[in-house]
Amino acid sequence: MTLKELIKPFQSDIDQFTSTYEDVMRSNIPLVDTIAKYLVKYKGKQLRPLLVVMTARLCGKPTEHTYTAAAVVELLHVASLVHDDVIDNSETRRGFASIKSKWTNKIAVLMGDYLLSKSLIGATKTDQLEVMRILATAAKRLTKGELFQLEKSKKLDLTETEYYELISDKTAALFTACTELGVVTSTQDEAHLNALSSFGENLGIAFQIKDDLLDYESKLSIIGKPAGSDILESKLTLPLIHSLNVADSKTSKALLKQIKKGLHKKDIKPIIQFVVDHGGLEYTREKAESYVQKAKDALSIFPDNEYKASLLNVVDYVTHRKK
Amino acid sequence: MTLKELIKPFQSDIDQFTSTYEDVMRSNIPLVDTIAKYLVKYKGKQLRPLLVVMTARLCGKPTEHTYTAAAVVELLHVASLVHDDVIDNSETRRGFASIKSKWTNKIAVLMGDYLLSKSLIGATKTDQLEVMRILATAAKRLTKGELFQLEKSKKLDLTETEYYELISDKTAALFTACTELGVVTSTQDEAHLNALSSFGENLGIAFQIKDDLLDYESKLSIIGKPAGSDILESKLTLPLIHSLNVADSKTSKALLKQIKKGLHKKDIKPIIQFVVDHGGLEYTREKAESYVQKAKDALSIFPDNEYKASLLNVVDYVTHRKK
Repeated sequence: MTLKELIKPFQSDIDQFTSTYEDVMRSNIPLVDTIAKYLVKYKGKQLRPLLVVMTARLCGKPTEHTYTAAAVVELLHVASLVHDDVIDNSETRRGFASIKSKWTNKIAVLMGDYLLSKSLIGATKTDQLEVMRILATAAKRLTKGELFQLEKSKKLDLTETEYYELISDKTAALFTACTELGVVTSTQDEAHLNALSSFGENLGIAFQIKDDLLDYESKLSIIGKPAGSDILESKLTLPLIHSLNVADSKTSKALLKQIKKGLHKKDIKPIIQFVVDHGGLEYTREKAESYVQKAKDALSIFPDNEYKASLLNVVDYVTHRKK
Repeated sequence: MTLKELIKPFQSDIDQFTSTYEDVMRSNIPLVDTIAKYLVKYKGKQLRPLLVVMTARLCGKPTEHTYTAAAVVELLHVASLVHDDVIDNSETRRGFASIKSKWTNKIAVLMGDYLLSKSLIGATKTDQLEVMRILATAAKRLTKGELFQLEKSKKLDLTETEYYELISDKTAALFTACTELGVVTSTQDEAHLNALSSFGENLGIAFQIKDDLLDYESKLSIIGKPAGSDILESKLTLPLIHSLNVADSKTSKALLKQIKKGLHKKDIKPIIQFVVDHGGLEYTREKAESYVQKAKDALSIFPDNEYKASLLNVVDYVTHRKK
């Protein structure tokens, strides 16, 4: 199923989210407004707001707060991307110039801060402490994950267990926030909250594993960045972690030493080959599948209906996507 | 009165704040913990937490939430300083190496994000939506002020009215948050809230005007940075704005043109002289005094007691400080 097909039954929900989102983004500072409009124009997949409204539909009925929650979670996501591009020194985002590249690093830092605080102010409008708590927790886990990654990319000693911990914070935290926000803005059912929290967490982990896999599998033309970008940035991800674990220790040590020294584009191909030879891609696919299964299982407490079916389709979309 | 003398009657309050603050700062990520300890060690004046507890004492009695509020507002302040040093490319802060200089820009961006989100999580612990609202508003105004400043420093067309708007966001927002937090964590009196909100706002504006004045008046040895730093960074502040307004328009235009081109250290002295000659320092001192008076007036609804006296002493400290 394509993303477009996934969104179709929720188009009116997404329209309400979009209107709230664009309202929150408006600013009377010309510079801020220009950047905000740029960010609105080159929007991403909007998977996160979609998760909020889908979850709310599954639990009951979206409220005004559901759309606010969808907007603030997207704001938090965009804020973190604007800062990520400063941190990773990325010139492009979603195929277009990143904020730090189109404007400056300084402006990107401030704009990220501004979007984050706008997100929080938006959240207070729901008058729900629970919404604030979910959002603040996600914000903290996002940066905790990034800081952990930064530390580990220097030491290059990320274990497989630490990898899951890292992507849980870096990516799954926001997915969990989305599903939790969908629940708390439409119902107060504790069992629903636990089930959908687990769904979001496992979906998020599967999403990131798939992302890391794409970095090894994809062609530049599809994902908008060259394969092997993670390796070039000294980011150890599951395909390589597993391959280093199963290769003989002499080979692994030599490879780590080479990565530590700093890689060039020409080094990418042999490393991808090393991963293929050691079953790194296969192993990673299996792991992604196991998280997919956990996510699906988490929905078992819900009766079969169109909303549950949509969430299951999201899971399949996330793991079968080509970019 | 020195800061030490100001703090003395509130030492046990400050101790409770410090203990809460250090608790919140702790992290199990080694890199984060190291940086957090560095920030705790080279702490600043802690004027903001002091304002929170003083205000709470004036309104009633500090609660556990008062100390939490003091800690989260200091966290927000420190988070903003860590990012400011990235934005202003400052090598030092409070006389010591800034985070971006001791570590890297990347780490400083992430660490600022992390402290901000920690601040928000801390605030949710009070279970008071009002606390969240005050904090989020302050965070938004801080970054809005910085973005406005960045925009204006390029165009060099900051009017006196815009200057007050800018420093209200950039500095007074946090002072207002402090006094408001002191009120809402100790009482729910609406009249107290309005009075102390106005007190915080006017004190904050007076504080920033004094800061901007010090940049023209001070010697390197006292404030830890050379006089004229603002001019070098193309930041127009009140002494210069006023002088440009009263000088003949030909001179003013020529000076603005020179600043736009970029200044060198040797250009500072003549500009300071220009400001002195055009009464810029005197005018700025008068303006600071008028905000001082407004701050003091805001306290008139309170009976005379030791806590009111302490807050009045803070006003005098802020405007008579030499750094």
